[in-house]
Amino acid sequence: MAEALGTALLLTIVIGSGIMAERLSAGNTAIALLGNTLATVWGLYFLIHTFGPASGAHFNPAVSLVMAMRRELPWSNLAPYVVAQLMGAACGAWLAHAMFDLPILQWSAKVRTGHAQWLAEAVATAGLLLVILRAPKAQAPSLVAAYIGAAYWFTASTSFANPAAAFGRMFSDTFAGIAPSGVLAFAVAQLVGAMVGLGIHRLLGNERQEN
Amino acid sequence: MAEALGTALLLTIVIGSGIMAERLSAGNTAIALLGNTLATVWGLYFLIHTFGPASGAHFNPAVSLVMAMRRELPWSNLAPYVVAQLMGAACGAWLAHAMFDLPILQWSAKVRTGHAQWLAEAVATAGLLLVILRAPKAQAPSLVAAYIGAAYWFTASTSFANPAAAFGRMFSDTFAGIAPSGVLAFAVAQLVGAMVGLGIHRLLGNERQEN
Amino acid sequence: MAEALGTALLLTIVIGSGIMAERLSAGNTAIALLGNTLATVWGLYFLIHTFGPASGAHFNPAVSLVMAMRRELPWSNLAPYVVAQLMGAACGAWLAHAMFDLPILQWSAKVRTGHAQWLAEAVATAGLLLVILRAPKAQAPSLVAAYIGAAYWFTASTSFANPAAAFGRMFSDTFAGIAPSGVLAFAVAQLVGAMVGLGIHRLLGNERQEN
Amino acid sequence: MAEALGTALLLTIVIGSGIMAERLSAGNTAIALLGNTLATVWGLYFLIHTFGPASGAHFNPAVSLVMAMRRELPWSNLAPYVVAQLMGAACGAWLAHAMFDLPILQWSAKVRTGHAQWLAEAVATAGLLLVILRAPKAQAPSLVAAYIGAAYWFTASTSFANPAAAFGRMFSDTFAGIAPSGVLAFAVAQLVGAMVGLGIHRLLGNERQEN
Repeated sequence: MAEALGTALLLTIVIGSGIMAERLSAGNTAIALLGNTLATVWGLYFLIHTFGPASGAHFNPAVSLVMAMRRELPWSNLAPYVVAQLMGAACGAWLAHAMFDLPILQWSAKVRTGHAQWLAEAVATAGLLLVILRAPKAQAPSLVAAYIGAAYWFTASTSFANPAAAFGRMFSDTFAGIAPSGVLAFAVAQLVGAMVGLGIHRLLGNERQEN
Repeated sequence: MAEALGTALLLTIVIGSGIMAERLSAGNTAIALLGNTLATVWGLYFLIHTFGPASGAHFNPAVSLVMAMRRELPWSNLAPYVVAQLMGAACGAWLAHAMFDLPILQWSAKVRTGHAQWLAEAVATAGLLLVILRAPKAQAPSLVAAYIGAAYWFTASTSFANPAAAFGRMFSDTFAGIAPSGVLAFAVAQLVGAMVGLGIHRLLGNERQEN
Repeated sequence: MAEALGTALLLTIVIGSGIMAERLSAGNTAIALLGNTLATVWGLYFLIHTFGPASGAHFNPAVSLVMAMRRELPWSNLAPYVVAQLMGAACGAWLAHAMFDLPILQWSAKVRTGHAQWLAEAVATAGLLLVILRAPKAQAPSLVAAYIGAAYWFTASTSFANPAAAFGRMFSDTFAGIAPSGVLAFAVAQLVGAMVGLGIHRLLGNERQEN
Repeated sequence: MAEALGTALLLTIVIGSGIMAERLSAGNTAIALLGNTLATVWGLYFLIHTFGPASGAHFNPAVSLVMAMRRELPWSNLAPYVVAQLMGAACGAWLAHAMFDLPILQWSAKVRTGHAQWLAEAVATAGLLLVILRAPKAQAPSLVAAYIGAAYWFTASTSFANPAAAFGRMFSDTFAGIAPSGVLAFAVAQLVGAMVGLGIHRLLGNERQEN
């Protein structure tokens, strides 16, 4: 339940702040992305702190898969985690629509595709896994938040880095949306990136910092 | 006294930075909200640190009510806390006006109402309580600040999440104001949200993190 | 020497980032103030950390005076501290001009005066002292940085809160400057504010937090 | 390998966020620099945390040189470190281009030269070394990130402060680029600055804070 609720709130934050930013910025997308980024950074920071003790605060099937491969999550929990994340993501998008007085059910028409975008998603997810796997537990919330804040800007795709986020954003025809036809390729790129991140972590020595 | 002074400074920050942001931004409300948000985030961070040891740094009747229900605040202290918060909020608005050379006494004409706004306030306050109830004490200042920073953007109402803030903003016909006719409904939505936040906290296991 | 160097760098940061922000922002002062604020917040954070162990990192005659009154600074050190701060402030302004290829010696023509501005400076300095006096030592850098970040926006004067800063900014006819005729009144308001901050601290119980 | 990978990611972040910021900001360079700065600050914070335990996370030949002079890095490791940093920097630029669907191989045409710029680079690198040498180990990531965030704004050159960064940016004809003809003078100014920073650190007492 913590995974579902946390992923829902994460999507509410990403999509809601995108709507707010787009409404207020009068077409200046750099300012819109600044607002969207800051809300996401602060949001991840408090969400991981708030739900981490209950569920680990993955909010992300790619992270849950890697954790299962590392035996930090029982394999039997993987499917329930992923289902909770996907359901939460859709509900989060709908909650954002309700608060902003938009039609609840929507499909995004924003096409996001192409080799450059897929490379960006793979890089973004590899970096995310590297940060998570090497972070001391106590600093994971601020490190993940900082990572995603940077990745919103340095990757060409504004770094979804999360199959559940791609799934949930599909239901929102707003600033943060992604057309359904592009979701599967994004998810594949993200899973490839996650494996690359895990591989680099092992090459670097596999230790998790302790302090 | 710490509650009154802290709530006053909180409202001075919210309203004063709103005036500054509106004056400088020449109609670009996204930039105005960025300035307003950053000032509020930094402000909450230092205010909770500075006044927390003296009074708990609630600055918020919804928080004080929940703390009384949890026996972390004696019930007999609830009324004085709320009175101090409301008086402080009004004084904070007036201090902001004095610094910006505006008429001290004003009533806001900015109508904020409707089901979407009320839902937003309920969600915002539920989230705030969840963050406060689950935060380790030492990190409460940065977690609450980050939460409100995100909520300024992801809720459609820019997240008052605080009946005292709604009360104080009523006295200011500026960027952060709310017309008096909308205050009561906001306060009801916030109290409902606070109860929802408390309920979710209990469902998640009710533990407060210790570290 | 740490006080002189630290105050010089503080003024270089405040004035240099003001020049950069004004040059790039094409007349949008809200964006200019955003850049100026972020640079100052990050600057204070690293300066207090870097020079704190050597000198206490006051960079501010009003703070040094209060520390002398509290016997945390020997009275005999007060005059040398203030002289170092004022000399450092002027040198910092000149270094910023040299880096930006401007005439080294300038006088500001930006008039800053009037009761509202003086009230703002008194409030800003009172708040600064309250934050400093109540901050646990280890968190003083981030608390002071956050306080000034908020105060740049919530006070009508963009919160100098520091007689040495007012003195140094007098030498710069740029975004952050202040005409010499206004400096004395700002310094008086700041010292009054510092005494108010000290008084409120004593009313609240005078304890410094320990953790 | 950690140095090469970390420097590559640093350059990917600096250059990639510059491309994103320039694309979205429609000619408003202040907003572009805000996005570029925030991405760099968050990026340094997570990169130093992620790669620090493996290699010290210098990502910077000037830092590695000073560490060798202080016997914190064996002299025999200096050349491999610098080669890894330079190669990583070039690869980082190329990865950014690939993600943004730009020609991989480019040369910057943005001329950055002149005494004011060189002074700015020397000041920027002196400050960076001072911060690094005096920082408690546990806080180095946030202090270095904050320092560079401020220095992007208070130095006239937007503070490269890193010969490897100057080298890598030479390969990118985008927001963050530098024309090859200016790189050598920048590197000389940076190394002079690094020596000044080391000298000031010794004058201040040479102690590294421990806590």
